Amino acid sequence: MSHKKIGIVMGSDSDLTIMREAINILKEFGIDFDVNIISAHRSPERAHAYSTEAEKNYEIIIAGAGGAAHLAGVIASLTPIPVIGVPMLTSGLGGLDSLLSMVQMPSGVPVPTMGIGKSGAINAALLAVQILSISNEQLRQKMVLYKKNLSDEVARKDKKTREELKLL
Amino acid sequence: MSHKKIGIVMGSDSDLTIMREAINILKEFGIDFDVNIISAHRSPERAHAYSTEAEKNYEIIIAGAGGAAHLAGVIASLTPIPVIGVPMLTSGLGGLDSLLSMVQMPSGVPVPTMGIGKSGAINAALLAVQILSISNEQLRQKMVLYKKNLSDEVARKDKKTREELKLL
Amino acid sequence: MSHKKIGIVMGSDSDLTIMREAINILKEFGIDFDVNIISAHRSPERAHAYSTEAEKNYEIIIAGAGGAAHLAGVIASLTPIPVIGVPMLTSGLGGLDSLLSMVQMPSGVPVPTMGIGKSGAINAALLAVQILSISNEQLRQKMVLYKKNLSDEVARKDKKTREELKLL
Amino acid sequence: MSHKKIGIVMGSDSDLTIMREAINILKEFGIDFDVNIISAHRSPERAHAYSTEAEKNYEIIIAGAGGAAHLAGVIASLTPIPVIGVPMLTSGLGGLDSLLSMVQMPSGVPVPTMGIGKSGAINAALLAVQILSISNEQLRQKMVLYKKNLSDEVARKDKKTREELKLL
Amino acid sequence: MSHKKIGIVMGSDSDLTIMREAINILKEFGIDFDVNIISAHRSPERAHAYSTEAEKNYEIIIAGAGGAAHLAGVIASLTPIPVIGVPMLTSGLGGLDSLLSMVQMPSGVPVPTMGIGKSGAINAALLAVQILSISNEQLRQKMVLYKKNLSDEVARKDKKTREELKLL
Amino acid sequence: MSHKKIGIVMGSDSDLTIMREAINILKEFGIDFDVNIISAHRSPERAHAYSTEAEKNYEIIIAGAGGAAHLAGVIASLTPIPVIGVPMLTSGLGGLDSLLSMVQMPSGVPVPTMGIGKSGAINAALLAVQILSISNEQLRQKMVLYKKNLSDEVARKDKKTREELKLL
Amino acid sequence: MSHKKIGIVMGSDSDLTIMREAINILKEFGIDFDVNIISAHRSPERAHAYSTEAEKNYEIIIAGAGGAAHLAGVIASLTPIPVIGVPMLTSGLGGLDSLLSMVQMPSGVPVPTMGIGKSGAINAALLAVQILSISNEQLRQKMVLYKKNLSDEVARKDKKTREELKLL
Amino acid sequence: MSHKKIGIVMGSDSDLTIMREAINILKEFGIDFDVNIISAHRSPERAHAYSTEAEKNYEIIIAGAGGAAHLAGVIASLTPIPVIGVPMLTSGLGGLDSLLSMVQMPSGVPVPTMGIGKSGAINAALLAVQILSISNEQLRQKMVLYKKNLSDEVARKDKKTREELKLL
Repeated sequence: MSHKKIGIVMGSDSDLTIMREAINILKEFGIDFDVNIISAHRSPERAHAYSTEAEKNYEIIIAGAGGAAHLAGVIASLTPIPVIGVPMLTSGLGGLDSLLSMVQMPSGVPVPTMGIGKSGAINAALLAVQILSISNEQLRQKMVLYKKNLSDEVARKDKKTREELKLL
Repeated sequence: MSHKKIGIVMGSDSDLTIMREAINILKEFGIDFDVNIISAHRSPERAHAYSTEAEKNYEIIIAGAGGAAHLAGVIASLTPIPVIGVPMLTSGLGGLDSLLSMVQMPSGVPVPTMGIGKSGAINAALLAVQILSISNEQLRQKMVLYKKNLSDEVARKDKKTREELKLL
Repeated sequence: MSHKKIGIVMGSDSDLTIMREAINILKEFGIDFDVNIISAHRSPERAHAYSTEAEKNYEIIIAGAGGAAHLAGVIASLTPIPVIGVPMLTSGLGGLDSLLSMVQMPSGVPVPTMGIGKSGAINAALLAVQILSISNEQLRQKMVLYKKNLSDEVARKDKKTREELKLL
Repeated sequence: MSHKKIGIVMGSDSDLTIMREAINILKEFGIDFDVNIISAHRSPERAHAYSTEAEKNYEIIIAGAGGAAHLAGVIASLTPIPVIGVPMLTSGLGGLDSLLSMVQMPSGVPVPTMGIGKSGAINAALLAVQILSISNEQLRQKMVLYKKNLSDEVARKDKKTREELKLL
Repeated sequence: MSHKKIGIVMGSDSDLTIMREAINILKEFGIDFDVNIISAHRSPERAHAYSTEAEKNYEIIIAGAGGAAHLAGVIASLTPIPVIGVPMLTSGLGGLDSLLSMVQMPSGVPVPTMGIGKSGAINAALLAVQILSISNEQLRQKMVLYKKNLSDEVARKDKKTREELKLL
Repeated sequence: MSHKKIGIVMGSDSDLTIMREAINILKEFGIDFDVNIISAHRSPERAHAYSTEAEKNYEIIIAGAGGAAHLAGVIASLTPIPVIGVPMLTSGLGGLDSLLSMVQMPSGVPVPTMGIGKSGAINAALLAVQILSISNEQLRQKMVLYKKNLSDEVARKDKKTREELKLL
Repeated sequence: MSHKKIGIVMGSDSDLTIMREAINILKEFGIDFDVNIISAHRSPERAHAYSTEAEKNYEIIIAGAGGAAHLAGVIASLTPIPVIGVPMLTSGLGGLDSLLSMVQMPSGVPVPTMGIGKSGAINAALLAVQILSISNEQLRQKMVLYKKNLSDEVARKDKKTREELKLL
Repeated sequence: MSHKKIGIVMGSDSDLTIMREAINILKEFGIDFDVNIISAHRSPERAHAYSTEAEKNYEIIIAGAGGAAHLAGVIASLTPIPVIGVPMLTSGLGGLDSLLSMVQMPSGVPVPTMGIGKSGAINAALLAVQILSISNEQLRQKMVLYKKNLSDEVARKDKKTREELKLL
């Protein structure tokens, strides 16, 4: 396993629909990444190995999990690198369980947590870009441009909506 | 470390006030036990070692933790023995975070979860007694007696309250 | 009614879709079981009879119920054997009502509670297996194998996903 | 045990502070009542006996309980008379657990539920008075007067507050 | 408007699907009733008139409403007769808003509240029957029979399920 | 940009389905309005410009947003004119996130908040009408009529429902 | 009762501690106001009279209430003038009940809702000032100044904190 | 204002008790920082200036806020550098409002969110250290040591607790 900037990991392959959003962002920014399905609970030894090797393999980890979403916390307990958490939507409690299981970490072991679901996955990747941008001016410029495009996209939708409503 | 029936473990020594309730029940039933402070997040390697050794050392584990309460789940992922979870009360969310982090385990790795706080700690120990009673008739009789005493205690309180209210 | 290891009971036949998951696990582990539809509220005398006879008929009970989910608690109040609770998903409150009604038992009468819905039903059966394994080495080995299979399954999905993403 | 109009029952003598509010209302309206401490979970056989005898002894039952508050539901399952539920405040979840455990009864077995805590206890007694008033004109007049007094009391407080604020 | 036993009222005709369950129960028990669409907020004067006339027209009122569900409370404030509340399911908050708006009444004005949605509507009608049964032995016997049928129905489903599962 | 009475603004064009309800009400009352898509987070400089110009362009603003719904608060921080908030329904948490993000403003910067979703959008526009009616007697009369129509509509539905149920 | 700009009303004199914050703001802005204690549930006829007279007496109403907080909605149903709601903090549910009871109004009858407790009371008064400022340039200038003072106060605290931390 | 690694900012000086925990961690790691009191809502222009200058002044921002906690999101919308959010505990809703207002950001603008209160503040600073460690091996070693100390501290507490319980 060669070094990649970002390790994306998720508790189940059913989380891939959501986590693919993070993959797309990283591709867009040209950041290399790895993807693994590892369950903190069902494959704990692999989670352990992944975590203790993480510092060698990645600069940042993005971990998506749902329900009693321990994956990010388990990895964060075993590595000094940042581990970003993405809580999955759950059928009964709407992801509130995933969110609280991730974000309410004890002092000493941070898990920076994103919003529930797709927005969270996108933002996890963007946060990774922001972090890498601290020592990468070229990436910072891409991020500045990305933010400009976000704003322009809103302006375009504003114009389109106003035209439809005959306000222009 | 010699074999004990029950391993009690908690994420922080501040949880001892609550978990002492479980200790008291085990003493009352004459069941030997061990107590450890082990944090899933702050001392993950010790949690890992504890969990992989658990099958040799204990028959049942009782794990108390609060917030993003992963301790019980982490242990349960690494041992085939039952791991009973006791969610701690938390200042902000009243223990709802601890409860959901424990109980919403993915299929494959059960964490039988008790109520939040002291009642939960007492009941975790009683559940351990119930489990051990399956193959221990003497313990079963003690449990039957315990339940009878619970009922008698309610009857005494009923009588006392009715006297105070001059209903007798 | 002859002795069975496990008594599965649920408040309504509409819970069978969920509780069938527990049945499948018990079959997989070769543990004999019984299934009953008994409502704590609609058939209270049958619930009472079931509960007072439970010690003779079963070693462990698994009870699924939803809403004001009293079934597990009602049975647990009347028998010294372990009664595992499975909260059903509910349409309005997503199963939060079922969960709190089950898990927040008073001290003295534990109801070890599983997650909401299908995962909870699977885990209830696995917990029963874990409990029976304490005095059954063969069953313990099956559980160890089950956990290994869980882990292998995750590894297979990891490999498959990485292939699809052209990361291998 | 001679016949009383109302049976007040609570799961623990610690609930008496709250339930005394119901007692005071019944005394104020001159309605005879009985008080019992009976736990659905710790004294289930007494709860069963109480419930099956309830129709002979009372016209209405008021049941206060907290946490996994099954008492009202258990009694209601075994008697055709109305069983009014009063959810107790709980330390962690603020009584939301008590409320949902009481109110979310399955179809077939109603538990008319009051608000959490003291207001709920007062209102349970007032509801009992309203129910008895259906066939008791004298009691109805007392209830009409009680409501008038409520309104007058608000008017008095309005006047006093306006005087203090120099708005009169 | 001639006297009817029960006044059913709901805030919107969209609530009729739910409240029809209450109607069916009342028909089953042979209790005459009235149905009105009256909004506490959109038709406040009609709500006021309905409420002040309620004592003359009905013995009990059943009020269904959703969201900021004030209807039952508004009526209860203006009449000494019992007003039973049925909280509707809501799209965003699953009926938690309806439930809390109904059940958390201030001391002095009880609104006995049922579960959210259809079960609640059925139970509201059954509670009305229970209340009327206090002074109507024939109705009491019907209620006893209804409860027996509930229990028999569970027994039938138990038998059917056990047959399907080849447990009989 | 010429002066309009009301500025409607929303965080995303996907909110238009909901916010169109507000537009329809304003059209019904003959109040001129403007519509913009502006995101507090994705187009912050446009949100800033919009807000600092708001006093010149509008008398009242209606802002719809979901999730971490900051739009109304951001605008309200920069303008002395009233900014009415409409929380959007969200998939996971049902709009509870949108609601709390809007309504729990610190002292000093009010965001009058409406209910979640369509009702909220309608009511935001009606509140704007009520506000403008303070100094516009003709508009006040339209609002009085609107409320009368609401009541009449309920009466019509009452009549129709009673006919269908053969209660008339 | 002579005409005042603002009618402040609250469900109980125990709400005065909170609502006094609104009073103080109105005094600071030199806006005349009236204060009444009126309960939607305990003094419904006075609430009705107050509401139907409101248009003659006030331009805006501020209503504070807790629990099943119907006061604002009841008044809003009967008057075309704006009725601002302030949800009170409650002991069990932290004011979530008050908030949902107020904000989740049906379409047709807006209750612009503020945050729970003191901040909400302050902001209700500020919103009233913002509304009156639409047709009162002098008041608008005061509001602009108030906002400037808010900002200056933050700047002062910033400076003081930085000095204490020896960052200046 | 000279360049500092970390900008700590909070919405009110009352948040300093909590945010001081972050300050202490940064001091412990020898990372220079700045502290500001800036309210997104009460001093929006200063928040705007702070945010647009942030890229020049800091590498990472830590923002603490409570209630409708928009501060972190507002800053994040205007700067490409990472903005870590710390939700404050709130009296009514226990910080759930602060948490949801921060974490549920729309796609495009991440706010990595920590747990509610003191643990969150500590972890925000530790995350900042983790981020800076990516390109600072010396800091990485300090973080590895910090994690080792966390683990040793748990081991010490374990030993002390076991001695007190006479388990050693």
